[in-house]
Amino acid sequence: MIEKRVHGKLIKPYEVNADASGKVLENIKAALKKANLKDGMTISFHHHFREGDYVINLVMDEIAKMGIKNLVLFPSSLGKVHETLIEHIKSGVISEIHTSGLRGPLAEFISDGNMSKPITIRSHGGRARAIEAGEIKIDIAFLAVPRTDCMGNASGNGSKTQCGSLGYAIVDSKHADQVVLITDDLCDYPNMPRSIVQDNVDMVVVLDAIGDPEGIASGATRYTKNPKELKIAELASKVITSLEYYKDGFSFQTGSGGASLAVTRFLKDQMIKDGIKASFALGGITKPMVDLLEEGYVDCLFDVQSFDLTSTASMYRNERHYEISASEYANPSNKGCMASMLDYVILSALEIDKDFNVNVMTGSDGVIMGASGGHCDTAASAKVTIIVAPLYRGRLATVVDRVTTIITPGDSIDVLVTERGIAINPLRTDLVEKLKKANLPVVEMHELVALAKSIIGEPQPIEFDDMIVANVEYRDGSIIDSIRKRK
Amino acid sequence: MIEKRVHGKLIKPYEVNADASGKVLENIKAALKKANLKDGMTISFHHHFREGDYVINLVMDEIAKMGIKNLVLFPSSLGKVHETLIEHIKSGVISEIHTSGLRGPLAEFISDGNMSKPITIRSHGGRARAIEAGEIKIDIAFLAVPRTDCMGNASGNGSKTQCGSLGYAIVDSKHADQVVLITDDLCDYPNMPRSIVQDNVDMVVVLDAIGDPEGIASGATRYTKNPKELKIAELASKVITSLEYYKDGFSFQTGSGGASLAVTRFLKDQMIKDGIKASFALGGITKPMVDLLEEGYVDCLFDVQSFDLTSTASMYRNERHYEISASEYANPSNKGCMASMLDYVILSALEIDKDFNVNVMTGSDGVIMGASGGHCDTAASAKVTIIVAPLYRGRLATVVDRVTTIITPGDSIDVLVTERGIAINPLRTDLVEKLKKANLPVVEMHELVALAKSIIGEPQPIEFDDMIVANVEYRDGSIIDSIRKRK
Repeated sequence: MIEKRVHGKLIKPYEVNADASGKVLENIKAALKKANLKDGMTISFHHHFREGDYVINLVMDEIAKMGIKNLVLFPSSLGKVHETLIEHIKSGVISEIHTSGLRGPLAEFISDGNMSKPITIRSHGGRARAIEAGEIKIDIAFLAVPRTDCMGNASGNGSKTQCGSLGYAIVDSKHADQVVLITDDLCDYPNMPRSIVQDNVDMVVVLDAIGDPEGIASGATRYTKNPKELKIAELASKVITSLEYYKDGFSFQTGSGGASLAVTRFLKDQMIKDGIKASFALGGITKPMVDLLEEGYVDCLFDVQSFDLTSTASMYRNERHYEISASEYANPSNKGCMASMLDYVILSALEIDKDFNVNVMTGSDGVIMGASGGHCDTAASAKVTIIVAPLYRGRLATVVDRVTTIITPGDSIDVLVTERGIAINPLRTDLVEKLKKANLPVVEMHELVALAKSIIGEPQPIEFDDMIVANVEYRDGSIIDSIRKRK
Repeated sequence: MIEKRVHGKLIKPYEVNADASGKVLENIKAALKKANLKDGMTISFHHHFREGDYVINLVMDEIAKMGIKNLVLFPSSLGKVHETLIEHIKSGVISEIHTSGLRGPLAEFISDGNMSKPITIRSHGGRARAIEAGEIKIDIAFLAVPRTDCMGNASGNGSKTQCGSLGYAIVDSKHADQVVLITDDLCDYPNMPRSIVQDNVDMVVVLDAIGDPEGIASGATRYTKNPKELKIAELASKVITSLEYYKDGFSFQTGSGGASLAVTRFLKDQMIKDGIKASFALGGITKPMVDLLEEGYVDCLFDVQSFDLTSTASMYRNERHYEISASEYANPSNKGCMASMLDYVILSALEIDKDFNVNVMTGSDGVIMGASGGHCDTAASAKVTIIVAPLYRGRLATVVDRVTTIITPGDSIDVLVTERGIAINPLRTDLVEKLKKANLPVVEMHELVALAKSIIGEPQPIEFDDMIVANVEYRDGSIIDSIRKRK
């Protein structure tokens, strides 16, 4: 028996017969057989384990051994750790992929046109929408869970692995035809509190290890010391505090990039000075947000994904740190997602163009290297959407004439904060006067584009083939852009 | 701003614009218009407010004024307070009723054959099943909620009313085409923790009062002092502790009847002596279960309905007191409800017959006066199902040749405990030796039937008309019995 702490209290669970439910199986192969996996089916996974995930590779290897072909792979996202999927694409086990992100060798393989069918990129809200709308029918969901009981009450708080929120997995568990949990910590019944509920679970597979803790939560989040990023963060914080939405009970989301994270630090200093407290912080949760919660500067956290060890631990310690599903987070077609209540969102960009379109997906060489994530969801929803980005990175301009790939359309973006000035979307003329009054360095977007060119020079255009390797689906299901094979 | 306590901590919410969501409406009429209610639609309600409910009557009165006809009324249950529905049946506003329970003048009115279409009686698990299976499509759910924010994050913990768990309402909120919350406590966003989630909610109507606190939670639950009931409870407790399922980590559910409640007291005394603790208690939660939780004799409570002030308050104070939906509780067709993990359930009976069939619905005069509730759900699920009932009540036998109405089939019942002995279902011969060894007064069922007859005399058969006034649906959707018009 394993002792657990829930909200600081020591909980002693009780022994039950692990197979009382009939759901517990000893390996993935048994689950594949019981689920009757067939050629052409759609199978889903989640990415809460990030670069520490063992499960996608383990399941796909087992499927390959069984000789199953033409599967549609529908994870919430993919990482570098999933490089081994290349072999399964080559051998025809996987014929179609839908994902939010793609990185590393697998991303290069796909960017090079090695799949006959283009992959589909979706935002987190868009994925939940597609599932709930029935556009994607998941035949079998294979969901890695750090702890579960024999009936399938599962949580992100295991004895071997911890991932905090299981927000993406919750959606799959509710809508997949069959749900297979994969764990390395089968605990006594009942496992409470739980993220995934037993009445949605068909099977529980118990393995020795489902993930690498190092890769799942990458230790403590450290603040950037990059002076450029700090300057951008400070300016972004001033944008927030200069607008009328900044008042007791305001809400915000920040990304997990360096400048984004640093915004919270500057913001907090100002909140202390002004005696202002926030109602909620949303999204991927990081240590700076947990600090705000624990110090009383934000009333509650809504967590679709816990990014670091602090946020993972906080979800089980702090009453007011709430797990939410990806649909609750950002699905544009339910009856009101939490993103729709955001006052501010601070987001990063690989590229932003003169029309404020943002690219967070493809690199300057045209290769897929990022993730759509909740970018377009929160940008469309928040009252004020702020992009924090340096004018250029190394020898590459960030502020450009035209982004390589549109993930978030320009009309969702209100403000761009760079180290060389703040550009305001002409659609938000209401903000111009306010920010100028606040003595913030407001400049025109075309000036930033020109400034970047003057420093970096005119970029070499990327050469693409005609072949489409990826379609980018906007949160509402429309195709907003395509990514072509690089030459 | 209203201060709230969550798990003992004082939470200060923040002001938001109440109509930021566009969901908030000032009266029921506005919601009916916006929802476009039409003749013949199916509308649902919950019964967490029990005899303190104002909402069903308020909504139906407003609907009647609009001239809408032929509605299908689909509440989770009805009580004496809903007598006014008689007028709406007479005038054709309501043409069909589905419910778990029915009492008072409305029950008499229906028993007397005043509806042209028979009503349908469902168990709590069966109702959740029928909704999730799509057998019943709810067009509009009108859900009374003690507190909600403008987006529809709603809880049973309001400033004017408290009802604890909203377990029945949760199912409706997830499956109804349109969901209208009706509250008398609109609080600042976000209302956390919440039972009903904003992404399922279309509208929020704010009224001055939605229920009578006196009728919602009937004060403290008092133990019976009736010697017959105490004797039955003590025997039932001995049945539990004499069987092998009684060990660390066992689970149980008790009804809210006098003998049922008293079982918990005797059981607790024995658990203390034996040093045995339970893993969970399930179902309608009452003070004795909360006491067990708070004193450490049960690890957690799963609450589909909070019956008294103690249990209502406990859900917001005790970490390990968990709300569950009616589907999680007892739906036989999901992938594993919590009832399926029960070791023991202790249930009451209006009548039980020689084949162990149980009636909890109709009185000795043939009139509907009870509720199906979770009776057949938990009886079918638990490893040991114990009926606690006196041999007779007043001048009426409880143990009879043939029950007036079958709610729970005899093959679900394992043991009957009366003040005159314990009868064991012949299907459970394994129990006979064990209970005899424990020196418990095991008798044959036919002996108890004969004994009841010898005391009470042969009962007068009830005279029924041919007309069917109610069909009893078993939890799997089959019709297990019908109730006829009394002559």
